[in-house]
Amino acid sequence: MSRIVTVAAAQLGPIQKADSRESVVARMIALMEQAKAKGATFIVYPELALTTFFPRWYHENRAEADHWFEATMPSPATQPLFDKAKALGMAMSFGYAELTPDGHHFNTSILVDKTGKIVGKYRKIHLPGHVDYDTSRSHQHLEKRYFEPGDLGWPVWEFEGGLMGMAICNDRRWPETYRVMGLQGVEMVVLGFNTPSVNAQRGDEKIEDRMFHHRLSCQSGAYQNATWVVAVAKAGDEDGHHCMGGTLIVDPNGKIVGEIDHEDDGILVHACDLDATIFGKETIFDFKRHRRVEHYGLITERVGVGAPLGK
Amino acid sequence: MSRIVTVAAAQLGPIQKADSRESVVARMIALMEQAKAKGATFIVYPELALTTFFPRWYHENRAEADHWFEATMPSPATQPLFDKAKALGMAMSFGYAELTPDGHHFNTSILVDKTGKIVGKYRKIHLPGHVDYDTSRSHQHLEKRYFEPGDLGWPVWEFEGGLMGMAICNDRRWPETYRVMGLQGVEMVVLGFNTPSVNAQRGDEKIEDRMFHHRLSCQSGAYQNATWVVAVAKAGDEDGHHCMGGTLIVDPNGKIVGEIDHEDDGILVHACDLDATIFGKETIFDFKRHRRVEHYGLITERVGVGAPLGK
Repeated sequence: MSRIVTVAAAQLGPIQKADSRESVVARMIALMEQAKAKGATFIVYPELALTTFFPRWYHENRAEADHWFEATMPSPATQPLFDKAKALGMAMSFGYAELTPDGHHFNTSILVDKTGKIVGKYRKIHLPGHVDYDTSRSHQHLEKRYFEPGDLGWPVWEFEGGLMGMAICNDRRWPETYRVMGLQGVEMVVLGFNTPSVNAQRGDEKIEDRMFHHRLSCQSGAYQNATWVVAVAKAGDEDGHHCMGGTLIVDPNGKIVGEIDHEDDGILVHACDLDATIFGKETIFDFKRHRRVEHYGLITERVGVGAPLGK
Repeated sequence: MSRIVTVAAAQLGPIQKADSRESVVARMIALMEQAKAKGATFIVYPELALTTFFPRWYHENRAEADHWFEATMPSPATQPLFDKAKALGMAMSFGYAELTPDGHHFNTSILVDKTGKIVGKYRKIHLPGHVDYDTSRSHQHLEKRYFEPGDLGWPVWEFEGGLMGMAICNDRRWPETYRVMGLQGVEMVVLGFNTPSVNAQRGDEKIEDRMFHHRLSCQSGAYQNATWVVAVAKAGDEDGHHCMGGTLIVDPNGKIVGEIDHEDDGILVHACDLDATIFGKETIFDFKRHRRVEHYGLITERVGVGAPLGK
């Protein structure tokens, strides 16, 4: 069995409010065909891939946002994507807003195998932003209004011959995300993001700073867990709101092996050798020899900052 | 009360086996005088600052290494350093090998206030390397032979008008290190290191890669906890074994504000505004709003890698 997974990081350019899911799925299929032509066997699309990044839009009545959510998956609009993936023998991952039968709302990603079967689901745990309209911000980021925090943890799946995990957007900034998967031996973390180019609470933090933090987070998570990281943007100008690009693939040594330099639809393909994770996992990050959990207690005991312990 | 702490990161060039502690202390005092002249009020020296990096030398009988350890602190050899710090009103931190009255061995750092009083002690938790002689390595790294893992956790102290923490060398690669201190509100982490320029188990990993991992670890730890990080090297060629430099100061945004570009004795001085930590701590890394400890359980439940949880 080969340990090479040839991944296509499939960046999406902007999706306007007025764009239909069908039009987006057509773009995703076009990217999948490009990925297939370049030898990819696994394609990764961004967070909330089917719609505009709607959490920037405030609704007093939250139910008015429900039309951005999917009540089934595959849905009628995404069935052609599943059909195409199955026809091409392409595994895939993408994000969408999930409305459960019992009325819960999540920011979700799925893993779909080459037969079109959904074999893994992740619901975003680190929701950024805020619940109520915030006049102090240059733009709204209402993920805490429209979604509940994920309730599935960070499982790692046997998938495509390796150990695969998922994260979404803001999760990538939190070392706990990667570590929980690292402790399951993860070899590749795939994640999508929608990241505004300017900090809504600090206008002088612009795209270069935001890109720096993005890379720093993905690279350190990869290095410190000896895993591949595939991070995929939805980029460009959505109805006057700009999101950065920066779709990239990081190797288990923390090095960026490729990055997309535009903000349109496009793919980045890389043959990722999962065996490249072994050296780090068996030496400097051989957790069983080096971790000292007896001193990590605060990480799960405290949610927020508490008193300093030095006396 | 001012929230500026003017720090001097005081890099030491090589210390040979034959060099006396008195000769090293004289070098440390010279750096302290330079730091004072440049307006610093707090000087940080490297890990195991008083001696060569002795864990590279194997002794069948471990007790033969005891002469590298300090049984008291201040010791006769370091008393002049404490006296000078008190005379200059300079706070300081440095590392040394600690032998306790009851026979335990630790890789230790201390915080010393402006009156010369030891107010904080940290014992290195993440010991790298190995216990027994390893013929497969290009050089030995016997920290697990000569030291026990630290038993004091990572306390944070009120110090110099801010919240101060310590780490040592390999600790900086572990996100748990910074997070445990971040959960105590740490505003500055000081750490020293002795990092061989070549990976003993992978000869093609050379100084550029090692420096990359060093910076990546310090920068991500700073950013993800919105804290200053001051990392200080012992550098250069010790009896034919080369350690990298890379003494640097990272701001709470993850940016390197200064770095020493040589491998000799030298200082890097920066006026660190502890209030620069506030923005990150109150927004994207406002732990109490964003952390989800109910999903972090594996971090303390598992030491090493266990079974994947995806089904």
